[in-house]
Amino acid sequence: MFGLGDCLLETKQITGEGMEAIISLTKRRGFIFPSGEIYGGLSGFWDYGPLGVELKRNLRDAWWQWMVTAREDIVGLDSAIITHPETWVASLMMATKVGAATDAMSAAYLRPETCQPIFTDFDLIAGIRRKVPFGVAQSGKAFRNEINPRNFTARSREFEQMEMEFFCAPDESPRWFEHFKDYRRRWYEQVGFRAENLRFRDHEHKELAHYAKRACDIEYHFPFGWMECEGIHDRGDFDLRQHQEHSGKNLEYFDPDTKEHFLPHVVETSAGLDRILLAVLCDAYDVDVAPTGPEARQSGREDEESRAVLRLSPLLAPIKVAVLPLRRKLAEPAHRIYEELRRFMTAEYDETGSIGKRYRRQDEVGTPWAVTYDFESVDDKKVTVRDRDTLKQERVEIAQLTRYLRDKLDEHRLNYGAASGDIATDNRPNL
Amino acid sequence: MFGLGDCLLETKQITGEGMEAIISLTKRRGFIFPSGEIYGGLSGFWDYGPLGVELKRNLRDAWWQWMVTAREDIVGLDSAIITHPETWVASLMMATKVGAATDAMSAAYLRPETCQPIFTDFDLIAGIRRKVPFGVAQSGKAFRNEINPRNFTARSREFEQMEMEFFCAPDESPRWFEHFKDYRRRWYEQVGFRAENLRFRDHEHKELAHYAKRACDIEYHFPFGWMECEGIHDRGDFDLRQHQEHSGKNLEYFDPDTKEHFLPHVVETSAGLDRILLAVLCDAYDVDVAPTGPEARQSGREDEESRAVLRLSPLLAPIKVAVLPLRRKLAEPAHRIYEELRRFMTAEYDETGSIGKRYRRQDEVGTPWAVTYDFESVDDKKVTVRDRDTLKQERVEIAQLTRYLRDKLDEHRLNYGAASGDIATDNRPNL
Repeated sequence: MFGLGDCLLETKQITGEGMEAIISLTKRRGFIFPSGEIYGGLSGFWDYGPLGVELKRNLRDAWWQWMVTAREDIVGLDSAIITHPETWVASLMMATKVGAATDAMSAAYLRPETCQPIFTDFDLIAGIRRKVPFGVAQSGKAFRNEINPRNFTARSREFEQMEMEFFCAPDESPRWFEHFKDYRRRWYEQVGFRAENLRFRDHEHKELAHYAKRACDIEYHFPFGWMECEGIHDRGDFDLRQHQEHSGKNLEYFDPDTKEHFLPHVVETSAGLDRILLAVLCDAYDVDVAPTGPEARQSGREDEESRAVLRLSPLLAPIKVAVLPLRRKLAEPAHRIYEELRRFMTAEYDETGSIGKRYRRQDEVGTPWAVTYDFESVDDKKVTVRDRDTLKQERVEIAQLTRYLRDKLDEHRLNYGAASGDIATDNRPNL
Repeated sequence: MFGLGDCLLETKQITGEGMEAIISLTKRRGFIFPSGEIYGGLSGFWDYGPLGVELKRNLRDAWWQWMVTAREDIVGLDSAIITHPETWVASLMMATKVGAATDAMSAAYLRPETCQPIFTDFDLIAGIRRKVPFGVAQSGKAFRNEINPRNFTARSREFEQMEMEFFCAPDESPRWFEHFKDYRRRWYEQVGFRAENLRFRDHEHKELAHYAKRACDIEYHFPFGWMECEGIHDRGDFDLRQHQEHSGKNLEYFDPDTKEHFLPHVVETSAGLDRILLAVLCDAYDVDVAPTGPEARQSGREDEESRAVLRLSPLLAPIKVAVLPLRRKLAEPAHRIYEELRRFMTAEYDETGSIGKRYRRQDEVGTPWAVTYDFESVDDKKVTVRDRDTLKQERVEIAQLTRYLRDKLDEHRLNYGAASGDIATDNRPNL
């Protein structure tokens, strides 16, 4: 199992240039804390604070919607973290990599990856009216003791995976592999990544793990260099064959159309949630530098201040809207607007400090819209909606505000397109 | 730590009468599987299948919305499962209860409850512009080796908790305790529990744990008897005091209004997600028995079949809507409707079997609405929407269908009311 040993180290991490501002922001504003800091910290373990947990939930949901809700041919699973020891005897993953040094400690197994329980549950899921090809997806915690923690949350000993295993006929795996490369690329685009910071790198033959027939890394350009966020692998029938041998249970699938028995082949998409979350923060972080000196005077922008802004997709933003009374005496009606909005989206109410300061507080954590209730609002029943990126301000009727913002959010919903693209369209109802 | 030892037992559980039909349904339709069944199972561990994981997500979300999104005075946290050993030395929770028998195995700690990391992160969260009173909520896995697994998923060794710790001034804890009893009661009502199956039981003085000043159990009437699903506790300053002593770090809060220093007192709401999920299934399970013999003839209901139905709140239902072409030749346009709906809600498309059979499949898993595309639909551009509970059928324009169903879902959204009721209304912006 899991020996802490060298985990009880200082929590300082090796990071590249440009990460300092982001790390500072994440702690100061409550995205990410070192775990167990009160007791000196635990190297390789991190806690997600109030804003971090919301961002993590939104990313996980965006993945789930894309991989499960959108697809007729993929279902979800939530398996136990503690797994039967035989699970790991049968996989690529060696028992010795899971259990630590001593015999006593290897008595229990925290899963080092979320995919194996998908393989061991394959026949149960196939039993509930599922026809091959179909996929099974799950997100959840995994643990690796042998990790050398570094680069902030990008490499830690406890982390969350989002994995999907797609079971298909043996000769179909090459085209499903290509399908999922394209399908995952569209996801990264839709959650808002800049194209220049992403690359898809196919493995050469000599790089392939022994179980893999083909593999592609999806890498992000972090300030400390390129690093894999997700891998897409054609695992062949390696895992099911191993589990079949070790369990003595026949895992072959009978195809009612072709009347053939076969062990399905598997195409896997395996993503690291913590790493993608860090990539999202790096990708979204920006500083609007205000002009100074003659330039500022000439352009009449002397009053502007520089601002840090997280240009998060509204789909991912921890807070969708902030409601701000211009003055404290306007608190009551502004607060009623907040109470209405929070039924439909995460909202924050803030009445402390100048309005400019409050805007910048929201910019820094990526809130896409700020609603200001001012003295005119009392009479015209309208509020000002400020856009984080364009800085444009629009007057909107209070009675229409919820609908206005829900429509804005709808514009940023994932767009699956007709079915799930190319061959998935032929992969009609398996029910 | 965690020794499997006697976990490697048969997975048969002791349950009461009336549970058999529910357990059978959960396995047959893919709500819950025994974990590691392929290798003989692991007693006290369960996997949530395709429908179970959706129900679990919906319940967790409903809790999160009520406890975090709805409240200005509560924020979320997602802390690591592997925790610093000192965390447990300092709590009520004994180290010997966490670690198993041998020294080697106690080297690492899987948290036995999600609340302690909230206490150890208290000062970090208070540091991000939070004024007492405020609460911190988190849901996540916890592990207890000493549990004797029984009653299906109600008592297992790996389970998910949903906990909230509310920090307040010492003399305020009695009224926050009453507030949260009422607030949690309203949640159980709104997610659809029948009142007669719930009871709130205040502990008598002699029942109280040593850390608790007052406590209330929220119990559900399972087929196997009454069992606690949630506990509300006034923990005083027990936990913060222990962590302060063991860490040597001053955890006192300075109140900027009264200029006083104090250790906050804590009111906790501690719920078991797996147990609440099982309670939801028991509460929702119903059988509509069709009349037979003379009664059926007299009422002209000879063609009716009995049906099992899960009367889940639409808020919790794993699938919100099923789209069913009356005949296969109507598949294309029906499928396009399904593709539109699944952008906004979990949807299922089913073209296999008689329409009556397909309705019953959906009834059994609690799908609130079924949309049927029939031959008339081709001309009048309308579909039939069937209500699971009333069995009423309504013709709805296809162009209006998404809006119609989203409005229906909105009717079942949690209704927080003005602020969060009673004293919470005075507990205005802490920002």
